[in-house]
Amino acid sequence: MLGDFNVRTDLALETRESFEEDDVELRGVRIEETADEEKEIYTTIVRIETENGARAMGKPVGTYITLEAPNMSSEDEDYHREISAELAKHLRAILGDKEQTVLVVGLGNREVTPDALGPNVVNNLKITRHIAKEYGRSSLENQKKLVSAIVPGVMAQTGMETLEIIRGVVRDTHPQLVIVVDALAARSTRRLNRTIQITDTGINPGSGVGNHRNSINQEKLGVPVIAIGVPTVVDAATIVSDTVEQLADTKEHRQAIREKISPHLNTMFVTPKDIDETVKRVSYTISEGLNMALS
Amino acid sequence: MLGDFNVRTDLALETRESFEEDDVELRGVRIEETADEEKEIYTTIVRIETENGARAMGKPVGTYITLEAPNMSSEDEDYHREISAELAKHLRAILGDKEQTVLVVGLGNREVTPDALGPNVVNNLKITRHIAKEYGRSSLENQKKLVSAIVPGVMAQTGMETLEIIRGVVRDTHPQLVIVVDALAARSTRRLNRTIQITDTGINPGSGVGNHRNSINQEKLGVPVIAIGVPTVVDAATIVSDTVEQLADTKEHRQAIREKISPHLNTMFVTPKDIDETVKRVSYTISEGLNMALS
Amino acid sequence: MLGDFNVRTDLALETRESFEEDDVELRGVRIEETADEEKEIYTTIVRIETENGARAMGKPVGTYITLEAPNMSSEDEDYHREISAELAKHLRAILGDKEQTVLVVGLGNREVTPDALGPNVVNNLKITRHIAKEYGRSSLENQKKLVSAIVPGVMAQTGMETLEIIRGVVRDTHPQLVIVVDALAARSTRRLNRTIQITDTGINPGSGVGNHRNSINQEKLGVPVIAIGVPTVVDAATIVSDTVEQLADTKEHRQAIREKISPHLNTMFVTPKDIDETVKRVSYTISEGLNMALS
Amino acid sequence: MLGDFNVRTDLALETRESFEEDDVELRGVRIEETADEEKEIYTTIVRIETENGARAMGKPVGTYITLEAPNMSSEDEDYHREISAELAKHLRAILGDKEQTVLVVGLGNREVTPDALGPNVVNNLKITRHIAKEYGRSSLENQKKLVSAIVPGVMAQTGMETLEIIRGVVRDTHPQLVIVVDALAARSTRRLNRTIQITDTGINPGSGVGNHRNSINQEKLGVPVIAIGVPTVVDAATIVSDTVEQLADTKEHRQAIREKISPHLNTMFVTPKDIDETVKRVSYTISEGLNMALS
Repeated sequence: MLGDFNVRTDLALETRESFEEDDVELRGVRIEETADEEKEIYTTIVRIETENGARAMGKPVGTYITLEAPNMSSEDEDYHREISAELAKHLRAILGDKEQTVLVVGLGNREVTPDALGPNVVNNLKITRHIAKEYGRSSLENQKKLVSAIVPGVMAQTGMETLEIIRGVVRDTHPQLVIVVDALAARSTRRLNRTIQITDTGINPGSGVGNHRNSINQEKLGVPVIAIGVPTVVDAATIVSDTVEQLADTKEHRQAIREKISPHLNTMFVTPKDIDETVKRVSYTISEGLNMALS
Repeated sequence: MLGDFNVRTDLALETRESFEEDDVELRGVRIEETADEEKEIYTTIVRIETENGARAMGKPVGTYITLEAPNMSSEDEDYHREISAELAKHLRAILGDKEQTVLVVGLGNREVTPDALGPNVVNNLKITRHIAKEYGRSSLENQKKLVSAIVPGVMAQTGMETLEIIRGVVRDTHPQLVIVVDALAARSTRRLNRTIQITDTGINPGSGVGNHRNSINQEKLGVPVIAIGVPTVVDAATIVSDTVEQLADTKEHRQAIREKISPHLNTMFVTPKDIDETVKRVSYTISEGLNMALS
Repeated sequence: MLGDFNVRTDLALETRESFEEDDVELRGVRIEETADEEKEIYTTIVRIETENGARAMGKPVGTYITLEAPNMSSEDEDYHREISAELAKHLRAILGDKEQTVLVVGLGNREVTPDALGPNVVNNLKITRHIAKEYGRSSLENQKKLVSAIVPGVMAQTGMETLEIIRGVVRDTHPQLVIVVDALAARSTRRLNRTIQITDTGINPGSGVGNHRNSINQEKLGVPVIAIGVPTVVDAATIVSDTVEQLADTKEHRQAIREKISPHLNTMFVTPKDIDETVKRVSYTISEGLNMALS
Repeated sequence: MLGDFNVRTDLALETRESFEEDDVELRGVRIEETADEEKEIYTTIVRIETENGARAMGKPVGTYITLEAPNMSSEDEDYHREISAELAKHLRAILGDKEQTVLVVGLGNREVTPDALGPNVVNNLKITRHIAKEYGRSSLENQKKLVSAIVPGVMAQTGMETLEIIRGVVRDTHPQLVIVVDALAARSTRRLNRTIQITDTGINPGSGVGNHRNSINQEKLGVPVIAIGVPTVVDAATIVSDTVEQLADTKEHRQAIREKISPHLNTMFVTPKDIDETVKRVSYTISEGLNMALS
């Protein structure tokens, strides 16, 4: 379990796996797995049900849905449409059918390719709140949700915590629900750009490529916060550490190795060379899923 | 004076000129003009001092400083440095020497070249607020102002009024002053990208390329609002109307002509073909002026 | 007919219309019009068949297909799919069914929103030439065309004529056909972003937003050149001139008026305020049409 | 020395260092080191003088100048101006004082942040070739070099080898010299964004972030080719391998370890989290150096 202190992942799925490796049984954490072999979409639902489970997992109580779609980084448009539909299905189950105003927040830095997922998703969203305000609710027939969106930028660009910006906007525009979209850090390169995590717990410290220090959740914003994330990077320290783990034969050896890993690596990330195309495609898939769920 | 109802300008300077043409003396409006022939920078200060003057000008009481720099769209770096210094001088005179937190807002649409001025300016700003928060005020020696910044986007992208976003951010992050930077509409193509207007009245309805409906001013935000604007477009209806004015010989003819101008033109703007280079250069000049004034 | 010297249009359709107004019958020019009322797509085919017709029209001998789709700037995805299909149908009729290597050239300036059409289209193209080179032709089953693409930039950015760049690339990579995609200037604002022109004559002087001085056609490149264009701007001089035309009552008056129009306007263009969204949408529609036709 | 087969670096400096570690003396390779302590710029010149030296180094015969500037990723503008001047000094020494036409090529993918160095540099260049063509050589008084530039894009975007595009453009526009600017892969994260390599050998296989397969050099283009590179990434396999090297105690152990490193890592790179700001700043420093040297 030592590994957990060194190795960062934003995926509940991977946190859970790290326990399995260590053969620990976890109370307060339930797992459901379903595979749609035909569509090649694999779903894992991790439910953290008790404070005990939350402590063990290092993540708050809540539901974490993970869609794994091995070909998500391929070009097949029909496949992407199915992933969008699957995402929309899960979102609708959470959102319900009621009329609602929804603020979508595209977290991340649009100038750093693997961190541009959130901003990209917002770029392709159907924005409707202002239309309802201008032409009346009836001009959007059948549309149950009114959508607004913001790309707050990152602290080096704004000088402000992302939470400060979102909280201000929420207070002034009163959405009934917030959906944050963010690029995540995974532990394994195999999961990059192939996995979507949906959770009703919002964003919590240490999440995301940019390492937000503040939570963005219901407690902070006063309204429910759903987070959608896709791992697009692995922390550089993690990748070195993980490779080394497999090589060390004793606990002591592992520990010795870890101490030698340069702290410099903590400011670095690992990402695929074709990240431009993958992030563009995956962002589109998610925005289409959101457009389906919010119409 | 009829023209004023049809012809839109965000420059106080141009509004004033339209009166002069019509040989009207304006009470409550004072003008100072200075020319630095060597630097080729011409400064006009329009002071609207009474409500009467404000009504006549169609702009609120306050000070409107206009820098005209005929070569501002040229490549000469030294010339641009002088304009930045001139801008900084005027800003410092307004801001004073006290310690202060300043939020810079880059208005406009970064996807539309002539409207990207505000977002571009923010891109080149030195952001310091988060550094002071993290490492303490003393880490920024001599720096009197702490700077944060935001690019709120436009309503079609966010579904929210720009004012709503800014007001929320102001409430949550408590800047003591707001500076908004915006692309403006001029009446004359000769002024495009050659003129900087600085005013202590903020943004008022009808200003800017994007035609904000809400004021962004001290009354709305609770803190002083300085607006910096550069005209980058002429409204298409204005350009047609203005040409036609010169051709018509009677008031009746002018009126008849105006009625025939297609309402379609109201959704169109006119801008130079090399707007990409000019906006980039002018944005840099303004951000350098801000960096000087805010350090 | 004087108007033609002042008023610029890249659309053969509009050139033809200007004659109709003046009640002139044109030899060597044939017109076919078809309307698909259900799909709301209107097709005009202008065939310039003789040198005489070419002289009168100011455009080379060849076929000019114009698709008019009044709702092309709307958001309706199904409608856009139909336009893509219609475009693909016409392209396939020109290209035929043979195996072929095709170079797509995205003309224009990606930094100027209405001129970014060509670069945007190339961004969404399926590029296959390198795959065939690397994994063999058989790796692309059924794919009849091998596609390469380039965005040459504009002269202010490269210091080179666009023709020089394309000709160099054609000589070195030997495509059997070139397709150039470009933003055009229309005469009427009503046609902006609603019209697609397809021609087998390539690009000819005066075409495009950026006013290319050199032809880009079969004579210059040694292989057939198809041009796809969408009008996204009206020249500022044209819009003023056109409005004024309607107002002047005599030929002499018109002429007098024209002489007063500022030459400054020749470096300006008119475009809609929501050009960012429209160009994005229309570019996608065209790239989808190309992807269909070239697969 | 085994390491050299696994560990990729585009820096001659680092290749040389790997030998030093292994205590090998290299014939045909000469090193000069100079330190300007005041300016904090450290210069290493590696001269590969014989085919023997070239084989040992795995790089062609030629001169490799490396500027190391530890604070190059900081914000200090004066420091950057000094680096630009230093770069210009070395370029001028290579280029000489004669009148010359120069084509600058910005290699790399503008959509992938650490690979956008070349495209960014071209964005800020002063382009003059077209001005001389249009207004005559005399319109550019004192300017010895005429500059053109191109951003060819990467193979996934164009379907063409970068070499094919450049060769075509060179043949058609006849520059007398080509300067290619590229993002490089270093072996050590400490060198990222702090080092500029200038070489008269052009680009050779395995160089650059994007792993060009073809050389871009005098032999291929028929004119001298100077390459300017800045390391912005470390290959993910390299970083893991290098860390592991330090831990393994025997040659066999090292070998065993290397075999376990996932081949998956070969498609990944490591880069700093603040790569957006650093690449922007370093690109500007290089374009200023080029502008000085080419004016």
